[in-house]
Amino acid sequence: MNEFLPRGWGVQGERGIAFVITGPSGAGKSSVIAALLRRDPKLAFSVSATTRPKRPDEVDGRDYYFVSEAAFDRLVAEGKLLEWTTYQGHRYGTPRSEVVDRLALGQDVVLNVEVRGALAILNAGLSHPVVLVFMVPPTRDELIRRIRARGTESPDILQARLAIANEEVKLIPAFHYLVVNDDLAAAVARVEAIVAAERARIVPWPT
Amino acid sequence: MNEFLPRGWGVQGERGIAFVITGPSGAGKSSVIAALLRRDPKLAFSVSATTRPKRPDEVDGRDYYFVSEAAFDRLVAEGKLLEWTTYQGHRYGTPRSEVVDRLALGQDVVLNVEVRGALAILNAGLSHPVVLVFMVPPTRDELIRRIRARGTESPDILQARLAIANEEVKLIPAFHYLVVNDDLAAAVARVEAIVAAERARIVPWPT
Repeated sequence: MNEFLPRGWGVQGERGIAFVITGPSGAGKSSVIAALLRRDPKLAFSVSATTRPKRPDEVDGRDYYFVSEAAFDRLVAEGKLLEWTTYQGHRYGTPRSEVVDRLALGQDVVLNVEVRGALAILNAGLSHPVVLVFMVPPTRDELIRRIRARGTESPDILQARLAIANEEVKLIPAFHYLVVNDDLAAAVARVEAIVAAERARIVPWPT
Repeated sequence: MNEFLPRGWGVQGERGIAFVITGPSGAGKSSVIAALLRRDPKLAFSVSATTRPKRPDEVDGRDYYFVSEAAFDRLVAEGKLLEWTTYQGHRYGTPRSEVVDRLALGQDVVLNVEVRGALAILNAGLSHPVVLVFMVPPTRDELIRRIRARGTESPDILQARLAIANEEVKLIPAFHYLVVNDDLAAAVARVEAIVAAERARIVPWPT
């Protein structure tokens, strides 16, 4: 703690901060977060639980905890999830332990959650600061191109994802920061700036 | 403006933002600001008016507008200053035109003002966001070393500056961000992160 800070005041970076990154499918959240974690060892990733099937390139416990519907039910019933939502027929939830325990140890936590889940984190009563970042592609045309490039060949699924994205962006006003992901390195730098700035924010210090 | 932003909402970077940098004498504000301005052409420096004598390395109109007591009185009387204060027997003021006109043109403005002046800017009723940054040396010992290195040989003046600094840091809680200037490049990077983050902040958009 800097010795010029008056008693009872600190900067957020000396406690744990929860950085919640959200945005429509195709915004590029996962790539940005992966780069961010590689560059900043003080950031820990909150691994979500999901009932959706694992993709070939994903690793259980690194990308998600892949669980059965019954196991997800148990997590909910036992109060082990900070928030959970259904997205395109699958459930996603944030294990309390991924977030709360690390924040208590002074680590900063990065969460990759969908839009309503992000707002639920803000209202989950964490005793640590929650910073909400909304990531978007530069244009709607680019969003369509990215969703297509993911191998979503069915026009129905493409239309469904665009419709969801249109609903999601209506919630942008509830977020703190907007990051345009036109270029991976630039987007990573923008999120890193937000992380650095929030760590320097002056706040009352819990005593 | 990113096309995903709902109507009536924007990010601060699309308007002008006033970044007010303050801190005790010896914090290194001028060096950090000089580096910042060289690296970011979107930042304009607000040149203050002062009645203190020009130092050999300073340029009138670049570092300060060096004015007589009578000229300063006129600026005050004509409402041309956003704020003004007396510091160690000399008057310092922020010309309204340095700030208001540039903000209206969408430029970001950087102000180097003493602590009470910084708070006065926040309360001056600008219709643009005002971001307050408090800069400090890493330690009190380092502050003393820096004030001495400036050629302040008289122990009385050193004691007076330290006493002022002790009063100034009591106002840290009124500021948004604390930047520790332990190393010039690192301090510049910290302020740049604050600038980038504040530009990405989501705000209601004046229509």
